[in-house]
Amino acid sequence: MKRELEFKSKLEGEAAADRRTFLAGAAVSAAALALPSWVRASAAPAVPRDEMDGIRSEIEKRHNESVERLQHWIQQPSIAAENRGMNEGCELTMHMLRDAGFEQVTKVPTDGQPGIFATLDAGAPCTVGLYFMYDVKQADPSEWTSPPFEAALVDKPGLGKVLVGRGAVNQKGPEATFLAALHAMRGAGKKMPVNFVFVAEGEEEIGSPHFPQVVRKPEIAAALKKCTSVFMPYAAQGLNGEVTMTLGAKGVVELELVSSGARWGRGPRKDLHSSNKARVDSPAWHLVEALVTLVSPDGNDPMIEGFAAKARPLSETDKKMIAEAARRLSEADAKKQMGVDHWVHDVSWQESLELLCSRPTINIEGLVGGYTGPGGKTILPGRAVAKIDMRLVPDMTAAEALAALKAHLAKKGFGDIEVNMSGGYDPTSTPADSSIIRASIAVYKKNGIDPVLLPRLAGSWPGFVFTGEPLHLPAGHFGMGHGNGAHAPDEYYLIESSNAKVAGIDDAVRAHVEFLYEVARTA
Amino acid sequence: MKRELEFKSKLEGEAAADRRTFLAGAAVSAAALALPSWVRASAAPAVPRDEMDGIRSEIEKRHNESVERLQHWIQQPSIAAENRGMNEGCELTMHMLRDAGFEQVTKVPTDGQPGIFATLDAGAPCTVGLYFMYDVKQADPSEWTSPPFEAALVDKPGLGKVLVGRGAVNQKGPEATFLAALHAMRGAGKKMPVNFVFVAEGEEEIGSPHFPQVVRKPEIAAALKKCTSVFMPYAAQGLNGEVTMTLGAKGVVELELVSSGARWGRGPRKDLHSSNKARVDSPAWHLVEALVTLVSPDGNDPMIEGFAAKARPLSETDKKMIAEAARRLSEADAKKQMGVDHWVHDVSWQESLELLCSRPTINIEGLVGGYTGPGGKTILPGRAVAKIDMRLVPDMTAAEALAALKAHLAKKGFGDIEVNMSGGYDPTSTPADSSIIRASIAVYKKNGIDPVLLPRLAGSWPGFVFTGEPLHLPAGHFGMGHGNGAHAPDEYYLIESSNAKVAGIDDAVRAHVEFLYEVARTA
Repeated sequence: MKRELEFKSKLEGEAAADRRTFLAGAAVSAAALALPSWVRASAAPAVPRDEMDGIRSEIEKRHNESVERLQHWIQQPSIAAENRGMNEGCELTMHMLRDAGFEQVTKVPTDGQPGIFATLDAGAPCTVGLYFMYDVKQADPSEWTSPPFEAALVDKPGLGKVLVGRGAVNQKGPEATFLAALHAMRGAGKKMPVNFVFVAEGEEEIGSPHFPQVVRKPEIAAALKKCTSVFMPYAAQGLNGEVTMTLGAKGVVELELVSSGARWGRGPRKDLHSSNKARVDSPAWHLVEALVTLVSPDGNDPMIEGFAAKARPLSETDKKMIAEAARRLSEADAKKQMGVDHWVHDVSWQESLELLCSRPTINIEGLVGGYTGPGGKTILPGRAVAKIDMRLVPDMTAAEALAALKAHLAKKGFGDIEVNMSGGYDPTSTPADSSIIRASIAVYKKNGIDPVLLPRLAGSWPGFVFTGEPLHLPAGHFGMGHGNGAHAPDEYYLIESSNAKVAGIDDAVRAHVEFLYEVARTA
Repeated sequence: MKRELEFKSKLEGEAAADRRTFLAGAAVSAAALALPSWVRASAAPAVPRDEMDGIRSEIEKRHNESVERLQHWIQQPSIAAENRGMNEGCELTMHMLRDAGFEQVTKVPTDGQPGIFATLDAGAPCTVGLYFMYDVKQADPSEWTSPPFEAALVDKPGLGKVLVGRGAVNQKGPEATFLAALHAMRGAGKKMPVNFVFVAEGEEEIGSPHFPQVVRKPEIAAALKKCTSVFMPYAAQGLNGEVTMTLGAKGVVELELVSSGARWGRGPRKDLHSSNKARVDSPAWHLVEALVTLVSPDGNDPMIEGFAAKARPLSETDKKMIAEAARRLSEADAKKQMGVDHWVHDVSWQESLELLCSRPTINIEGLVGGYTGPGGKTILPGRAVAKIDMRLVPDMTAAEALAALKAHLAKKGFGDIEVNMSGGYDPTSTPADSSIIRASIAVYKKNGIDPVLLPRLAGSWPGFVFTGEPLHLPAGHFGMGHGNGAHAPDEYYLIESSNAKVAGIDDAVRAHVEFLYEVARTA
């Protein structure tokens, strides 16, 4: 997930403050803690022993096959931002779905990169939706210690054996782990406990601009309508095994504000020698003057009229959840991890979490204007750009936020500034008592993890296509296991864990099996 | 010249409005206009015929030698910004000086790249200072139609044969033309009419940070003190042969304003996921908020307290000079050339020239913060930079302007923002009645050019080291000839002119000879 995984890595510092032991219960001996986690987990199975019979050994037996499947997938880059390997990546993903037992697998054309629709009918009473992405973020090989598309296995001190590669944790690792669960269940001769309706996109990393086209195709919408919920495989564990769950996510609008002499009718149409500033208006100053009108003088609060009019305040339940999270998570660890000394307005830890969950934001992602190289260059730029993201909470929508921004700029005398939205979507919410959330919590708890709950992820994922009109399905993420470095060099996914509290790939595969049985049971 | 030549190309559109014919006087026949310009110029010699005897033929005879010298010089890049070929470029320049007759040629170490000090004592009563630069701007070969360091001779329709290469016009072409004048005079057996004190730097393109160290060395300062004036060879002619002269130049300060979480103590110390904007301050917003305090809301007028306190208003003489320039130059051509539809505040053409000559400015050269690539990236940048240049008029100084900026930022609550000056210097002024200006005008006029005069160049060059304390020498530029593309791809210098109004290299060499005799005569 484009935004969520980055966010998770930021939350790891917080979650490391979860002082509860990995294995709940005072009777756990030090000796037990030294056992591999999957052995210990077997003492508190998420599913009856007979259901797991044969599956555990099948997972172990297929360990190399699972790792090689993931390596093969990573070795095929599919980067939407560079239109690189997209068709190959789509075809490979479709092949892997067929291989994992999906009966019907279809490529779904869109105005952008194709999506995938697939089904697996096990004749079960319960049908579950699956959301995958087959694209990955760009990678600059010069920044990596092992090549991003080689998928090398590397020993990482304190963690264990990890697989390094672009997409390792975001999102091929967790997705391949889920597929390995299907292989293990089939290999053990088990019937799937649920049917699957699968949808995937190849443009998650560029803001899912065409994913609604996939899920709104009549036959796909009809299939999704039969689902009790939708989930995406995830590697939810932090460095110490802890898990933070969220009941939805903020929406996002990513856009560029472009100030240009050509559009403005003032200033130069292209870069001009800077000596002319004495007599020529500056599109760069024009942009800066427009920008400051968007936020309060401290840069923290959106000042666009009507922008946050529909922002729903936190409920009492939300506030209690956050208070509990604030109690369990460490402010000091969070600040250290984030490289931050103060929250905005010097608010408390609990208030900072409330802001994180509830506040719409207007953020500068980047500023690009005129000369950007080393030193200076005496030009008056003809064009300057601010890259902006706006985060939205229910009941704001991406379309309304964009319209409010445009109206604001026009009203303030900056109607000439182009507003180019590149991606984004509405917020998403899933009820705490939905089957998918209850099943997730149950499986985490049975594996000794008491997840911290937050009402909302401050990052974003395109869950609105499931939770919003017309489907209204619960949607979220589930998965044990660990990885880090989404969008960064040396992205990794944990294969063999040296920390008993953190699941390696085999334990993560097993957790997916447990989750599917749990979903079937509680749906 | 870093800033001036760029500026000149912008002024060409204006100067093209000089409707006077190249050859003054109504008696000039159409037949005479068809003759090569140097033949025609000989009808109105700038110096008595006996002084030029033998020199003209020597110039023609040495045409290939002059072109090859320039080619050889261009083929040795010296780029201070990249620390590339600096020592080789310095040595080559020194070799060329000795070759042209300088008796004493010394490398002058500085804290940066070395300067050069040289003298040529002709036993003349008058000593003239020379200022050269041996560095050139960077060049990206992929943007050039012929390689920037090949110095190819190319036919340019409407202009003639030009030499294409980095440094062709800025500044090796004009400098090599001057050296060719010395060779021609020696070749013709002439005694130099003036003695020379020569200084050069290798850091003009990065703002001359160490050039004061060169000219303030006691033996060099003592030598310069004997000079009546200092000049730099120049290719002053526009596309139609016209010349615009200036009696000084604005000063400049180039700097970066750096806002960072590390210095601020708020916001992140490095880039953070943008979802955290809800609870974390933004160094990028902090920079934007600081920037708007520097100028009026339209981005045009400096608002830094005390910044322009010492800015000297235009005198009545200045205003008359500008009124005359406004009458002779074309506003429409200037706007077309610049890609501009309106002046600031929609002032008139004459007012726009007044602003250009008299207004201190604060300009954004560039904005660089966070993610600057294609599309977006959901980060909250830990650091953002604005590249600024400030132009200064007499009696402002670079040091005082910088101090005023720092005091302003501190007072407005932005004292954490780093102010990193990378280069710059004080304004420079030379009296209209100084020998160098009078000699320049005389030679231009004798060659049929009635130069447009402006009180000040809005661009900048480091003439303050000569015109300011302690030397107080007149300093300026002289040279016929034409080139363009300083700092841009396909920079060129005109070798053989197909336009009778514009001097090729041989005519430009001859004009330097005339200029030296004229300086000697009028000093």
